[in-house]
Amino acid sequence: MGYDLTPQGLHDLAEGAAVLGTGGGGDPYIGRLLVEREMAAGRRVHIIGADELPDDALVLPSSMMGAPTVFVEKLPSGGGNVAAFRALEEHLGRRAYAVMPTECGGLNSMIPLMLGAQLGLPVVDADGMGRAFPELQMQTFGVLGVSGSPMAIASDHGDVCIIRAGDNKRMEQLARALTVQMGGASYISDYPMDTAEVRRTSVHGTLSLCRDIGRTLREARAAHADPFEALTAMLAGTPYSLGVVLFCGKVVDVEHRTVDGFARGRARLQAVDDPADVLEITFQNEHLVARRDGRVLAIVPDLICTLATETGAPVPTESLAYGQRLTVYAISTPPIMRTPEALACFGPAGFGLTDPYVPLETLLAVR
Amino acid sequence: MGYDLTPQGLHDLAEGAAVLGTGGGGDPYIGRLLVEREMAAGRRVHIIGADELPDDALVLPSSMMGAPTVFVEKLPSGGGNVAAFRALEEHLGRRAYAVMPTECGGLNSMIPLMLGAQLGLPVVDADGMGRAFPELQMQTFGVLGVSGSPMAIASDHGDVCIIRAGDNKRMEQLARALTVQMGGASYISDYPMDTAEVRRTSVHGTLSLCRDIGRTLREARAAHADPFEALTAMLAGTPYSLGVVLFCGKVVDVEHRTVDGFARGRARLQAVDDPADVLEITFQNEHLVARRDGRVLAIVPDLICTLATETGAPVPTESLAYGQRLTVYAISTPPIMRTPEALACFGPAGFGLTDPYVPLETLLAVR
Repeated sequence: MGYDLTPQGLHDLAEGAAVLGTGGGGDPYIGRLLVEREMAAGRRVHIIGADELPDDALVLPSSMMGAPTVFVEKLPSGGGNVAAFRALEEHLGRRAYAVMPTECGGLNSMIPLMLGAQLGLPVVDADGMGRAFPELQMQTFGVLGVSGSPMAIASDHGDVCIIRAGDNKRMEQLARALTVQMGGASYISDYPMDTAEVRRTSVHGTLSLCRDIGRTLREARAAHADPFEALTAMLAGTPYSLGVVLFCGKVVDVEHRTVDGFARGRARLQAVDDPADVLEITFQNEHLVARRDGRVLAIVPDLICTLATETGAPVPTESLAYGQRLTVYAISTPPIMRTPEALACFGPAGFGLTDPYVPLETLLAVR
Repeated sequence: MGYDLTPQGLHDLAEGAAVLGTGGGGDPYIGRLLVEREMAAGRRVHIIGADELPDDALVLPSSMMGAPTVFVEKLPSGGGNVAAFRALEEHLGRRAYAVMPTECGGLNSMIPLMLGAQLGLPVVDADGMGRAFPELQMQTFGVLGVSGSPMAIASDHGDVCIIRAGDNKRMEQLARALTVQMGGASYISDYPMDTAEVRRTSVHGTLSLCRDIGRTLREARAAHADPFEALTAMLAGTPYSLGVVLFCGKVVDVEHRTVDGFARGRARLQAVDDPADVLEITFQNEHLVARRDGRVLAIVPDLICTLATETGAPVPTESLAYGQRLTVYAISTPPIMRTPEALACFGPAGFGLTDPYVPLETLLAVR
């Protein structure tokens, strides 16, 4: 089973990953070019389901860490990811059978594809976020009992560190401090897992989901069909189930700061036909909450995506600019991300928000 | 050969270490209590010369990292030092024969004594600074070609990290960032060395020197003799050779900030009999330069010690207070610390000072 990713499939996967990046996660574009380079050199990207892993496999996730705003200026070179992966193998005294994403949204969808091609290892079609999140402890892996450390972290300048932290939040703090010292971006390999843990704790099928989202948008454009309607129809058949347009408008204000290794801020959109109708989105790397006239329309971990109104193309926070026509599109998260334990970790409280979590479908029903 | 440290010897060693702490290095007092606790429990502190090491020994230094101002409030508990030491052994896949100080000045004189007692390992009578310095790359070890990493760093809360850095300055930056996250103080084990490296790159006999300085001050007090004259007579027979009183006065101004994990600032002293006669000391954890009317009297790496005028007791920067009567006492550093390579690392340029290094004896001659 499993499948080799085609150049078209990679292109679609990158666009779908940008949608699930919910404004953050880093633009997959650069990562896609790096994977394309590997494919052009004859190396293949082989994707397998978690059910296809041998029972005794060691699986090591691979990703980048840092503020998306930094990735725009400091392009990933693809050397540090091998260093981090090998350092963790060495520390564990075991070779990995496969690599996997921790985060299917944004740039981090591409990093394990690149690593899998570089090392000739399959990539597991599952992740720990089902979207993008800004912090390392925000993983279904950890929510379901997997320790994030020992983890390895590497720069592009020959620095490699191993972290064994008391808990996953401490791991995030230590790795974040190192990432800032490494220039605001680093390569990591964390949450080492065996097959049973991968199967039990991950969000399944998310690389294929990204590919399907990208393909849906591409085909809708080619058919001059409404990309949002096409997306909603496609998502209805997945564990994400619900996709809905929340707002159409133009960007009138963006506040953006890169602090403590994060891109924090807010964006305000005005309805095209009614200047008094305003939607405000708050973000920490990713969009956290969308409010219209003070009322919450969607809140993390449900996905809040900013897409170009004309094409459905995802627009990350670092590219938000005055006058852009955007459609704010929300997607409900799968059940594994909505348990009380999951919400305590990456629901509103995990981001210091005082708003309670209310599922997207409930918020829609009372609208 | 070698000797077991007596309780009196420990007391003397701690006071001498505070003198060589040159205002920084952290007060050895707390560390001394921890070592006394080990001795009271029947464990011994055995000190050996580098010449007594077997030829194939692995020696691991042990120390704390952080701002001295933090150690005043966050007392070392002595658990993290074992964790860091064992983590480095594990990473290297080898057991250490002995422990040693990296820094004989200040609190870090005590940490390897505590660890040696805890683990039943001898402590090598040598270090890499011959005094106290604020940064990890400021070591004769590194100046003479030893890599500071792999190193281990641990908190008192169960976090342990391994750092493999591109160079010793990068190691400092990465470890400093982790130390800040660990609450401003951490335990480290760095510069793993074999016997030949210890013999070739360290400042020898510095633990015994600290003990002799402390004994000299104690005996001078008991005999109602001048402690500074006694100190000068004692140092004349050591590689430090020259000790001299630079200034007697009272503290009139202290500026103190804890920034980026360091205690930075300056102190101004006024001559008791002439308010217009002012000495200014600049420090980064340790005293860096002493200026009188703008003229440099002593500069790093030569030692600038602030001692109570009445007793000769060392006064660290975090205890400086208005009205204190202090004697500023300078000590020349041994030749291994004055090579061009050493000065490039921990001379004035290493601290961003534009003043050139001029040896203490030369500055005295032109006075």
